[in-house]
Amino acid sequence: MATDQSSETLEMRLRAIGSRRYHDQHPFHKDLHAGNLNKQQIQAWALNRYCYQAVIPKKDAAIMARIDDPMLRTIWRQRVIDHDGDGSNSGGINRWLKLTDSLGLDRDYVISQEGALPATQFAVSAYLNFVTDNSLLEAIASSLTEMFSPRIIAERVSGMLANYDFVTEETMAYFKPRLSQAPRDVDFALAYVLEHADSIEKQDKVAAALTFKCNVLWSQLDALYGAYIEPGMIPPGCFTPTLTKPA
Amino acid sequence: MATDQSSETLEMRLRAIGSRRYHDQHPFHKDLHAGNLNKQQIQAWALNRYCYQAVIPKKDAAIMARIDDPMLRTIWRQRVIDHDGDGSNSGGINRWLKLTDSLGLDRDYVISQEGALPATQFAVSAYLNFVTDNSLLEAIASSLTEMFSPRIIAERVSGMLANYDFVTEETMAYFKPRLSQAPRDVDFALAYVLEHADSIEKQDKVAAALTFKCNVLWSQLDALYGAYIEPGMIPPGCFTPTLTKPA
Repeated sequence: MATDQSSETLEMRLRAIGSRRYHDQHPFHKDLHAGNLNKQQIQAWALNRYCYQAVIPKKDAAIMARIDDPMLRTIWRQRVIDHDGDGSNSGGINRWLKLTDSLGLDRDYVISQEGALPATQFAVSAYLNFVTDNSLLEAIASSLTEMFSPRIIAERVSGMLANYDFVTEETMAYFKPRLSQAPRDVDFALAYVLEHADSIEKQDKVAAALTFKCNVLWSQLDALYGAYIEPGMIPPGCFTPTLTKPA
Repeated sequence: MATDQSSETLEMRLRAIGSRRYHDQHPFHKDLHAGNLNKQQIQAWALNRYCYQAVIPKKDAAIMARIDDPMLRTIWRQRVIDHDGDGSNSGGINRWLKLTDSLGLDRDYVISQEGALPATQFAVSAYLNFVTDNSLLEAIASSLTEMFSPRIIAERVSGMLANYDFVTEETMAYFKPRLSQAPRDVDFALAYVLEHADSIEKQDKVAAALTFKCNVLWSQLDALYGAYIEPGMIPPGCFTPTLTKPA
């Protein structure tokens, strides 16, 4: 049991969770950026990941709905703007749809989420429910996987551009703004969490919230791996690639 | 699009969903009853399935909380009694714990759900949320996977008793009462659904509810298969068998 309540100790604890549990440690991620997947497997990834992209601004709105302080709510609002866009600038959801477009997926089919794995949908729903069912501190802490996302994004963009001839700069346009947005978001969220987790009990809850969120991301890659790599068992009704040989 | 609103057509539609999507079609189920699994893989199944058992009476209480008619609520209450017990008779949850006991699992560890796969927990939570987030008709329709459970139970009990020397009649005591409880429950629920789904729109929702529930069950076996059979990638922090050779 931890007895040191310092924010430095908590931050180290959170980073240790990320080192072990963040989904850059998952074999699917390694295969994705190393060039080991075929186009159909990357389609499956993009189509399922859309479900996660689509829920992010709903999740952030649910967090905003629980914040009392207008200034804090305004800061959090930027996340919704980043994903939904603001008229002149395209948001993250739209950029993700450009990614699925460029992979040759039908946009209506992607948006319908009909072909997504149930495990993806259950994980994403669990995330949305988590931020309303738990304390605001835990809800904010669950966003802290972004502490680790710049490293995965850099690896993914360079690896995918180098290894797949059907992946272009435009395909990967989703990720470039995230390289500056995620650190900005996490600077605020991490400072908030370190300030407000002022007891061992709250620190335990914060650590559990980050673990939960890592599980949300990890289980999505588990499901993709099982359905589209090995053993390759696609659940009834889910996206079924028409081509099966490597692209 | 269906235009025939008869209850016979709806029942056929529901049975067709079960034929394709009920989890007796899943390779994990086939391996389980055919004797292809080792004891550790069966431990993983029992430990994860506990999460599902534990949520069933909560799910049924959530349905009761939405029923206006005292008589209907009383009929539904029997499900909670069957799972929680009533003092003199042990309920389904307790019988499931006898199953996990007999497989050598620590009872506190099972109850804590700490070793369960996140995918199991997300699927089970999705089921609990489904019955509160949708109409009462859809909530009741989601129970209709029991139309297909007697066939899986009979197959499972005989197959497991025949194929595993560590599985005894006592291990399988959970299932025997279910052979009479499930048909009784489903007689009522199916009649309710066939009576109340009196439009194409409602019939579509009923079919979607049954599909959803099949996905809840199927995705649990997908996750077990991926973690403990092939490719055998156990997510961080989940139950890890100490023995790896076949029992």
